[in-house]
Amino acid sequence: PFVGTVSLLVYVTVQAFLPKPEPKPPLVNLKVQKESQKVVNMVDIEDLGDKISYCRCWRSKKFPLCDGSHNKHNEDTGDNVGPLVLKRRQAQK
Amino acid sequence: PFVGTVSLLVYVTVQAFLPKPEPKPPLVNLKVQKESQKVVNMVDIEDLGDKISYCRCWRSKKFPLCDGSHNKHNEDTGDNVGPLVLKRRQAQK
Ligand code: FES
Ligand code: FES
Repeated sequence: PFVGTVSLLVYVTVQAFLPKPEPKPPLVNLKVQKESQKVVNMVDIEDLGDKISYCRCWRSKKFPLCDGSHNKHNEDTGDNVGPLVLKRRQAQK
Repeated sequence: PFVGTVSLLVYVTVQAFLPKPEPKPPLVNLKVQKESQKVVNMVDIEDLGDKISYCRCWRSKKFPLCDGSHNKHNEDTGDNVGPLVLKRRQAQK
């Protein structure tokens, strides 16, 4: 039992110092339509109003629209993502 | 030295079984304009042509445009992200 215990200790110790398997690069989308193979959204340009923001952080509850969730994601993780904003020049005059 | 060695072994073993610190949720953007606090792109709707795809995977070399890099990202990580495609209905007729 003593030899067995020491063996276990040695085994675990060696494991602890072995290099970890290369970590996979992270997912971008954690929750949106994970049943879909690829989430592509098509929008007709003629339907766009004066201003609309599309989510690029994949954390919005209104995906594909931006609902401001990128701010919490950025705070939580130190990331710096934000939306794509489509706007009409005319509307700003 | 023997007691010391066993102590070290025990220490490392205990460490190995302690819960890991909660991993941070992953970054979405690994490389694009990391010097910017928040990457927001503004596009004038009047300037849009018949079809254009905007990147939402943050892996494109032509960001904010999609260059197809989402496919490699999806393969590498098991993710399912894709672009936002803006198109003109008229152009399809
Ligand atoms: S909520 Fe995703 S970019 Fe704003
Ligand atoms: S390259 Fe990023 S969505 Fe296509």
